[in-house]
Amino acid sequence: MQVLSPEECMALLASARIGRIVYTDRALPAVQPVDFHLDGERIVILTSSGSKLAVAAANAVVAFETDEYEVETRTGWSVTAVGRSRTVDEPEEAAALARLPLRSWAPGRDHYIVVDLQQLSGRRIRR
Amino acid sequence: MQVLSPEECMALLASARIGRIVYTDRALPAVQPVDFHLDGERIVILTSSGSKLAVAAANAVVAFETDEYEVETRTGWSVTAVGRSRTVDEPEEAAALARLPLRSWAPGRDHYIVVDLQQLSGRRIRR
Repeated sequence: MQVLSPEECMALLASARIGRIVYTDRALPAVQPVDFHLDGERIVILTSSGSKLAVAAANAVVAFETDEYEVETRTGWSVTAVGRSRTVDEPEEAAALARLPLRSWAPGRDHYIVVDLQQLSGRRIRR
Repeated sequence: MQVLSPEECMALLASARIGRIVYTDRALPAVQPVDFHLDGERIVILTSSGSKLAVAAANAVVAFETDEYEVETRTGWSVTAVGRSRTVDEPEEAAALARLPLRSWAPGRDHYIVVDLQQLSGRRIRR
């Protein structure tokens, strides 16, 4: 079990496409897989306006996780972060984010959430 | 986007090996990938005694998520649950859990956490 440096964590975040955002929904822990894009030191996510995630992440502290494991070899890595999340309400900022290589897997998603990355940590399991 | 039935969710949980447990760590959302085993209607996880997860999940409500996505075809599924978690302190119960086909990926993990599955939900994305 190897602890990853912040630089390694950022490189892995840049390489990954799918993560999980962790938030609080009516005082209960909630988690949702999302496609994301690392933009500088923040994570950009597309969701639908009015979705549970859009409401919960409008102005909150959330966690974000991405990983890649291989069951056969029992190896892999994970990166987690905690950070402040907000929805993007300014049309200019949304237009800038629309130029990122982030395409939603599900239709009807046109609402951006950004998560500033803080408390980054990562681990790798080797054999 | 297809909503999965409880039976489909349980079948997918039975087929998966790696999930993420979502808990609260000092009032902040936290997430950790874990290897798990579905035992009836509960999830069994191995961790180290004294770990952050062991402390936080000793008597709490947590979320659990597992998924499988294929980036190339943009298809996949996810299953999430919310439920009460507890640590296993009785030696008899720990001995019974030790007979499950659950092997830890990291050394030094001999502390069981069980999560009773409630509020099960799942989604599948097809093309």
